[in-house]
Amino acid sequence: MKLLSFLDGNRESWGAVVENGVVDLGRALPQYPTLADFLGSDDYAKREAIVGGQKPTLALSDVKYLPVIPRPEKIVCAVRNYLDHHNEAVAFGMKREITEFPPIFLRVWRSQVAHNAPVIRPKVSDNFDWEGELAVVIGKGGRHISQADAWSHVAGYSIYNDVSVRDWQRHAQQIASGKNFVGTGPFGPWLVTPDEIGDPTKLKLETRVNGATVQSSDTSMLIFSIPRLIEYCSTIFDLVPGDVIATGTPAGVGFTRKPPIFLKAGDVVEVEIENIGVLRNPVVDEAQGR
Amino acid sequence: MKLLSFLDGNRESWGAVVENGVVDLGRALPQYPTLADFLGSDDYAKREAIVGGQKPTLALSDVKYLPVIPRPEKIVCAVRNYLDHHNEAVAFGMKREITEFPPIFLRVWRSQVAHNAPVIRPKVSDNFDWEGELAVVIGKGGRHISQADAWSHVAGYSIYNDVSVRDWQRHAQQIASGKNFVGTGPFGPWLVTPDEIGDPTKLKLETRVNGATVQSSDTSMLIFSIPRLIEYCSTIFDLVPGDVIATGTPAGVGFTRKPPIFLKAGDVVEVEIENIGVLRNPVVDEAQGR
Repeated sequence: MKLLSFLDGNRESWGAVVENGVVDLGRALPQYPTLADFLGSDDYAKREAIVGGQKPTLALSDVKYLPVIPRPEKIVCAVRNYLDHHNEAVAFGMKREITEFPPIFLRVWRSQVAHNAPVIRPKVSDNFDWEGELAVVIGKGGRHISQADAWSHVAGYSIYNDVSVRDWQRHAQQIASGKNFVGTGPFGPWLVTPDEIGDPTKLKLETRVNGATVQSSDTSMLIFSIPRLIEYCSTIFDLVPGDVIATGTPAGVGFTRKPPIFLKAGDVVEVEIENIGVLRNPVVDEAQGR
Repeated sequence: MKLLSFLDGNRESWGAVVENGVVDLGRALPQYPTLADFLGSDDYAKREAIVGGQKPTLALSDVKYLPVIPRPEKIVCAVRNYLDHHNEAVAFGMKREITEFPPIFLRVWRSQVAHNAPVIRPKVSDNFDWEGELAVVIGKGGRHISQADAWSHVAGYSIYNDVSVRDWQRHAQQIASGKNFVGTGPFGPWLVTPDEIGDPTKLKLETRVNGATVQSSDTSMLIFSIPRLIEYCSTIFDLVPGDVIATGTPAGVGFTRKPPIFLKAGDVVEVEIENIGVLRNPVVDEAQGR
């Protein structure tokens, strides 16, 4: 099943993709005002029975998407978690070692962008770079989740583009400043439930800029696995429904190229992940975008 | 004026400290369900007229505190922002330079702890260290706030204890992992409005463990000023009412001592800031605390 958040006029809702339409579950299940509320509920396990037989009321082509989870309580991002990206960073001259524990930072929900909405290149930088990533969305929350139990806490999988302002990211050791600009966190178009994802440790991931492939890898290159990331995060945080773990980006980012390639207004950036779909965003300059 | 958030039975509310009691403004002003909502409102400028003449309904000694802002959308923490702390870190052997831009990381609200509530030393570490800090609470939100305008966006000042799990903080370059454990972010007891704080650039700050002074400095040692922090953060983020900027900690943390001193169950840690008050928290071990 594919689940998404969307706007119907000014009303925020969420629903399921059925054929080429959307079943408005926010309207049908008012006890769950947001998709995150549903993901954390006992009804989530009964989703097939709940959605089955309901008719779509919106055409998918008319949907105004919201970020899959519009306001995750936490967005935890893994740093250099693909072996191919780690290697390109080292080749670029960065002094980096594979650490025993997963490096993570936090992104705020207000930086998020919906599928089809513009990513905004800030006025202060022209070092605007893509990072296609597999996003894990937490269903059942918890703390001290073991790796053996971790999969049962995954509500589904989606796509994140952890768009990065490279010069700001390097203002200091802490990279959060370059990873949190308004309009830099595309998340969508929907989440795919575990029963339809296939093997999440072997998903092809491709990022394209104006149709040209710039990242092409697959999730078997992850240094820290999805269960390890969940275990580590839940040692620190109380995970709650709708929390997002962005699992890191593979090789092929713009800054390591010679010369570097950065996103500019008019570009279109797409991230495609096997069995999920395509997250597509045009790029605008901040002056135009706000 | 002093403003705080508290529990009245199971009801979450907020109010003003008047003499030795609390005026329940959450009850009197139901259009503002939380203190953050009030800080962002036009009524905030009329607070003296609104509170004036109201009688406290709770004794201060009976109040069950909540973190001043129980669920800030963002908690931005400045790293090594006191000259004396920077110098002790360098003397300790850390290779650190004063950067041109303020180093920042993010803390999640779910890590927060109320005044008087226990801070929780996690099972996975005994490297549990204090960091007394001045907290700036944002009133009017905005983006691209100039240093000249910054003071007008400050709703008030409070105290943060950015309690840190030092070994986890050093798992990788990104320190967020050691700064976000459940039960490690004391924030309180209240905020003090700008008209009562005196000069926020010259406030004495003292941290005590079991009554012994471990940090003693003042906010004139800040490397990046409050207006500079607000300007920098608002270049990245859309600041909103109730956002918190923890401005960094001075010299005297536990890990730089020889031998290091860390917090353990039974300790009491207090942070006192001039013209604000004392934020007090006992320490418990996770096994006891949850």
